[in-house]
Parts: sequence; C-alpha cells; structure tokens
Amino acid sequence: MLINIRTNQEQQFIDITSQVRKFVEQEGLKDGCVVVFVPHTTAGVTINENSDPTVPRDIIVTLDKVFPVHGDYTHLEGNSHAHIKASLMGSSCTVLVENGQLQLGTWQGIFFCEFDGPRHRKVLLKAIASS
Amino acid sequence: MLINIRTNQEQQFIDITSQVRKFVEQEGLKDGCVVVFVPHTTAGVTINENSDPTVPRDIIVTLDKVFPVHGDYTHLEGNSHAHIKASLMGSSCTVLVENGQLQLGTWQGIFFCEFDGPRHRKVLLKAIASS
Amino acid sequence: MLINIRTNQEQQFIDITSQVRKFVEQEGLKDGCVVVFVPHTTAGVTINENSDPTVPRDIIVTLDKVFPVHGDYTHLEGNSHAHIKASLMGSSCTVLVENGQLQLGTWQGIFFCEFDGPRHRKVLLKAIASS
Repeated sequence: MLINIRTNQEQQFIDITSQVRKFVEQEGLKDGCVVVFVPHTTAGVTINENSDPTVPRDIIVTLDKVFPVHGDYTHLEGNSHAHIKASLMGSSCTVLVENGQLQLGTWQGIFFCEFDGPRHRKVLLKAIASS
Repeated sequence: MLINIRTNQEQQFIDITSQVRKFVEQEGLKDGCVVVFVPHTTAGVTINENSDPTVPRDIIVTLDKVFPVHGDYTHLEGNSHAHIKASLMGSSCTVLVENGQLQLGTWQGIFFCEFDGPRHRKVLLKAIASS
Repeated sequence: MLINIRTNQEQQFIDITSQVRKFVEQEGLKDGCVVVFVPHTTAGVTINENSDPTVPRDIIVTLDKVFPVHGDYTHLEGNSHAHIKASLMGSSCTVLVENGQLQLGTWQGIFFCEFDGPRHRKVLLKAIASS
C-alpha cells in the first residue's frame, strides 16, 4: 500500500501512525509485523515521541547542528546533509502486530522524516504475517 | 514475547542476546527472522560487539559528546538527547534465523540501549517464519 | 544466502543492489520483503542514492568528521569509530518485494558500508513471504 505525503517545510517530521494503523486493519493482519518503507534518499522514517511536538523539533534542530545544510560537501545538488540524515534515521521501520493491534509504546508514533522538502513523497507499507 | 529489563544507570547498553536466542528456541522457529522491538522513546536497540565492554562504552561516550545531555534543547523534560540517540540507534533490529539458529556474526551481540535511566523497560520479540 | 565482499579501502560503500535483486529472483519471492543482514561489528548497511558517487562519499567523509578515526576512545583496537558508524547505519535493512520486484525508489541503492577495511566481508540475505 502507498501513502502519499505532501511536506511543506524543508525539514519536517510528519506523524503517519494513524495511516499505518488503518492499513493493518484493512489488511486484516492479526499477528506479525508491518514494514514502513520510504523510497526516497533525502527522507527517512523513525519512531519517537508524538505527544510533545518539541521532541521531533529537537531531533531536527540537533541533527542540523551536527550535519549542517551548508557543510563542506562534494555532492553538487546541495542536499548532502539530507542524504546523511536519511541514512541515520533509516529508510524503514518495522512495527510488531498482535491481535490485530500495532504494538507501539504509549508515547511512540511513526514519523516520516523530510530532510529536503517541501516535496510530494511516498511511503510504502507491507504486512508480514508471523507464519 | 516480552523481556523485562531493569536498567541501573542513566546511559547503559544491556546485552539481551541470550534472551533472544532462548525465545527463538522456545518458538521453534527454524527459518525466518526475529524482530526485536523497543516500545520506548528514550531507549533503542543495536547490534554490536559484546566481547569487549569498551565497545558499548565508547559508543555511549561518543554519542554523548556529539549529542550532549545538557544541550540547547526545547523539550522541557530534559531528555531530548535520549530521544535523539533512540532514533539514531533505532527502535528495532531484525536478526536472521536458519536451522533454528540466530545468524549473528562471531562478535555480534544484541544490546538494549538505555539513554534515560535508570528505569524499568520492556523489549518485545516476534518470530517471523520465512514463508 | 551469502554474498562475499572484498573491500579495498578503509572506509567504503559498495553497491550490492544487483546481488539482492538477483537473490529475490532466484528465490522466486513474489510478495514480502528481503532482509539484508551484515554479520560484522565494524561494517553496516544503508540505502541511499547510488547514482552520484559523491553521495556515499559525502556520507563517509561527514561521519568521519563527527566520529573521527583517532578520537578519544577506550577500546584498544583503534576502531571504535567503526563500531559507532556501524551502529548508526545499522546491521540490517529491509526492502519490500511486490510482483517479484524490489520496491526501491528511483535513486535508491543498497550499500554495504565498510568502516574498518580492507577486509573480506559477508552479507546474509533472507526472503520473507508476506503470508
């Protein structure tokens, strides 16, 4: 399944937990895991706190201090920082499913991580049954 | 399956390889993978050397230099560094299983990564058969 | 399945996408995912742009600035930087498969990440059907 995302900032985390939960219900997956995959090289996906918006904000700002937009890079497109951050967050995350429910912790949400927006983006989802 | 963990330091890596191995045996998984998932937002999981304790120590100390506890963060709980490190290590790892055995390299162990302890923590395990 | 790799530099990303694609064809996997696992503690795997070679080069160089080879480490083997980078990139990646095809984005490739070469290395592959 495909989620279409429209980011509206250069760097932005977008909570996609509800879409992933809905996908698991639609697929009727009872026991296994769902793989969330980002088919881009300047965006990633991570699981972190989705209750207080300062958490994703601090992640973005801090990564940006350590891996600045205007660093000493060779890649001519000017978005090397975004490629680095994409690899650090990772291109996929795997969430367990039991009794048809995502096994996320109380404070966990799944974030699409835009590092080179704004853009139209896609997220791919796949349900994997445990056996 | 659930592993309960009691961390006793603020930042600490705890080797959970033997529990994951035992789980695979109990499940009778012969061929597939096991997903190790951390349902917390200030802890993660990583695979690295579990032979020399200076390896996890160097990872913790070095991450702490780059992403310090007392940095310039907005999140008021004072643990933004831990949220960042959790996303960098990741909330899950996937280990292959063949002939009922974890396919870890000679020096590899699975570490629960505490970044905001000491706390009671949980790790979730799921066996996924290859077909 | 096992891929043998011979790295020839100390730090180097090697594109293994074609081997992973070939494996999926050989396995006859139609729908599910393939897990790419690195059984080493000073090497990792990541998905990023494999079109312009300056992208992996910028990732290597930038990680090396932030996590230098000769840092203030305790581990006596002198490769702590490589252990840290291995955990940051991760020991596995998961790629979705539909209709027998890897669901990679246009610019995405799968890179084996050598951080302590040159060495003989291995990569393990496992096909997981969706149900």
